[in-house]
Amino acid sequence: MDDLEAVLSRVRDRVVPEPAEREHLRAVAADLTERTREAIADLPVDADVVQVGSTARGTWVSGDRDIDLFVRFDADLDREQLEEYGLAVGHAVLPDGHEEYAEHPYVKGTHEGFDVDLVPCHDVATAGDLVSAVDRTPFHDAYLSARLDEDLADDVVLAKAFLKGIGAYGSDLRTEGFSGYLTELLVLELGGFVPLVESARSWHPPVEFDPEGHAERTFDDPLVVVDPTDPTRNVAAVLSAANLARFQHYARELLATPSEEPFEPEALTPLGPGDVRDHLDRRETTPAAVVFDAPDVVDDQLWPQLRRSLDGVVRGLNERGFDVLRAQAMTDAADGADNGGDGRDDNESGAERAALYAELEVATRPAVVRHEGPPVAVRKHAASFYESYADDVDPETYGPFIDGDRYVVEREREFTTVREYLESDAAGDVALGAQVEREFAERDVLVGDAVATLAPAFGVPLREFYEPHP
Amino acid sequence: MDDLEAVLSRVRDRVVPEPAEREHLRAVAADLTERTREAIADLPVDADVVQVGSTARGTWVSGDRDIDLFVRFDADLDREQLEEYGLAVGHAVLPDGHEEYAEHPYVKGTHEGFDVDLVPCHDVATAGDLVSAVDRTPFHDAYLSARLDEDLADDVVLAKAFLKGIGAYGSDLRTEGFSGYLTELLVLELGGFVPLVESARSWHPPVEFDPEGHAERTFDDPLVVVDPTDPTRNVAAVLSAANLARFQHYARELLATPSEEPFEPEALTPLGPGDVRDHLDRRETTPAAVVFDAPDVVDDQLWPQLRRSLDGVVRGLNERGFDVLRAQAMTDAADGADNGGDGRDDNESGAERAALYAELEVATRPAVVRHEGPPVAVRKHAASFYESYADDVDPETYGPFIDGDRYVVEREREFTTVREYLESDAAGDVALGAQVEREFAERDVLVGDAVATLAPAFGVPLREFYEPHP
Repeated sequence: MDDLEAVLSRVRDRVVPEPAEREHLRAVAADLTERTREAIADLPVDADVVQVGSTARGTWVSGDRDIDLFVRFDADLDREQLEEYGLAVGHAVLPDGHEEYAEHPYVKGTHEGFDVDLVPCHDVATAGDLVSAVDRTPFHDAYLSARLDEDLADDVVLAKAFLKGIGAYGSDLRTEGFSGYLTELLVLELGGFVPLVESARSWHPPVEFDPEGHAERTFDDPLVVVDPTDPTRNVAAVLSAANLARFQHYARELLATPSEEPFEPEALTPLGPGDVRDHLDRRETTPAAVVFDAPDVVDDQLWPQLRRSLDGVVRGLNERGFDVLRAQAMTDAADGADNGGDGRDDNESGAERAALYAELEVATRPAVVRHEGPPVAVRKHAASFYESYADDVDPETYGPFIDGDRYVVEREREFTTVREYLESDAAGDVALGAQVEREFAERDVLVGDAVATLAPAFGVPLREFYEPHP
Repeated sequence: MDDLEAVLSRVRDRVVPEPAEREHLRAVAADLTERTREAIADLPVDADVVQVGSTARGTWVSGDRDIDLFVRFDADLDREQLEEYGLAVGHAVLPDGHEEYAEHPYVKGTHEGFDVDLVPCHDVATAGDLVSAVDRTPFHDAYLSARLDEDLADDVVLAKAFLKGIGAYGSDLRTEGFSGYLTELLVLELGGFVPLVESARSWHPPVEFDPEGHAERTFDDPLVVVDPTDPTRNVAAVLSAANLARFQHYARELLATPSEEPFEPEALTPLGPGDVRDHLDRRETTPAAVVFDAPDVVDDQLWPQLRRSLDGVVRGLNERGFDVLRAQAMTDAADGADNGGDGRDDNESGAERAALYAELEVATRPAVVRHEGPPVAVRKHAASFYESYADDVDPETYGPFIDGDRYVVEREREFTTVREYLESDAAGDVALGAQVEREFAERDVLVGDAVATLAPAFGVPLREFYEPHP
């Protein structure tokens, strides 16, 4: 077994940027900052420019090529003007850039091989005065920059590489993982990467950290890290219970059996149709998929809607007796967004089609369904129940008969096959987001081996589904 | 709609014995009593003889031909001698009789077309001094005889005819209905048949009557009638919730729409194999039956065992995912015991074969079953769970993966078809009575349309199953 320090040393060599990479990034950032100042000079108002994010703090993982520049306007500038001036600066600095949208529109482009975000914000005095969430970023940056020395910065890089490797990095609403800011705060709070994983190994959620000891409310999340710049905010609010558990799992694995493996993201090759059929033969389940056009929205809008829709479909299936073994929302997008979790989504989802995929233990039910009436003793309800099902009213119903102290009937079941249900209007009524709902109306329903046609387009999520691991 | 009094008058004409029937019975009972006295005179100890039961009190339903004579020995007589002398008297009076067994053995035979029970008991001073439950009967008889006038006696006959008609009469453990004694006490307590059904119409179980106001304990039964001769006994202890509900249901029906119909037991013709198949086609269920030789015991021993076995099989099926829609224990006996509920069972069950019959909504499950492990945070349990399922240990298992805060695996399912389960040793482990357990070991399992071969032998209970009514 390798020694933990030897493993971390090799990982550090790979993921901590070399001086040459740092110098190159510094020079490009300085150039962009200068060009931004020049563009600001052309505006009728004043503003300054500040580089933020991991590349500003020396906490990026080698190879990341993101430069984030925030243009800070006076706190009193109204929103419309801020947007107008912000975009003007952006387009001037990044002539080939395009507009994206977080809380404000901003310009995203490339410059000398770097992905550059040029984001306008208000220059507020304290985080308590925020006009929008974006305005918070410079405070985060200042807080961390003042506290992370070089050793801690290297440990932040290790932690990020670890979280990326295990698939728990990114606070976008598809991943629901650890944001960059959260990772840096945790390394700072615990005093390094090894102390962090040693601590995480025995966390009993809910776990709470409050670096500044200033929390002004309680939080109902499995991990709570009170924002040092905002006593009302949990930096880990987006983190799912599963990603927290995943982090604990791999922390234990790393400490028990040190290895570079968890620092290296697994590249999933898509499953083919034959692979899917092999799994179905082995599992003897009935798969069902509801497939529809992915609405043209960013991941942060798409994934909450897909998850809510999946929950609704699963609930609807279970309620009607089509017992769901496991289910997953999927898209045919190449694996997507990777951002630092500052609320800026890097791209459209890139998906053409989306699927709510479920494996069923039970895909048919009988023509009759048991329906329990009131206890016979509850006279009024019992009488009206009995009369509404008496022989002459509904000859197709079995009963009413008495079971224990109640009337019971066996009446016609509404849906006897999973396809009937999934194609019905009733399935369209599950809680869905606005954009998904529109596309869901035009859904295709695949049941049984036909789901194999989803591969290879959905081959990567199908591999996640059929080769599940922590 | 007929008037209630007119209906009851017609029923009374049919079910209340005429003077000629009464006189004939009186004469036969007197003759039997005299023969019994003569047989007692041959014993080395003294005893007296007392006629008990409905034919002693004039509360039998016309056509019933039961004469019950109790031979009362000194309370100090030891059990062995009581049994020896009791049987000697019985065989002397009923030379063609045979021995049956309640708490003591006794002799049962026929005499001039009447079914005669000759039962030995101890002559105890009060019901509190009982040596065995049989000794209680003369107290019941004395209590009722002193209180039932001719009108109330006729109303008792009406009530018995009604309870027989709706299938709720008989305290044998197959029926779990109203005993004769319970029926008479209720008519006495409420003041007649009509007051009884008017009261029952709006009972909210648990309902309690204590005619002598002397209850010395509480009871956990839906209907409680404290025995006037024993403050610690609920006369309605055997009555099932279903038969109480049934009585309430038909009481309401009778008062709402007076008719002679509920006073006339429905003669059920057996269902044929084609009828069973028609129901299965219409219901789209998968039926399954476990069929075995009925053990050679009386109904009061057989039925509690069959019910317990049925409960165990149904629980076992449901636990393994073979969802049971409805189930019933059945025998191929012609419809059986009809006794006054004094604990004496009139005959062997008469069944050759017994069946635990269930209709399933789900008869197959996938090859894999979800198995939830502990939350990842519960470090010791989580680690041992993870290790016991890790890839290299069990390559056939899917996972462990993380769902929410837990480890989950999908492992091989033990039984994927209902037949596998019902034929397995696991199904033999359900809670079964001693005699049923032995026969159950040699069970046949029928699944699907094969159950139709149970008709017509099991045709009557199959009709009850497929034409259920209150």
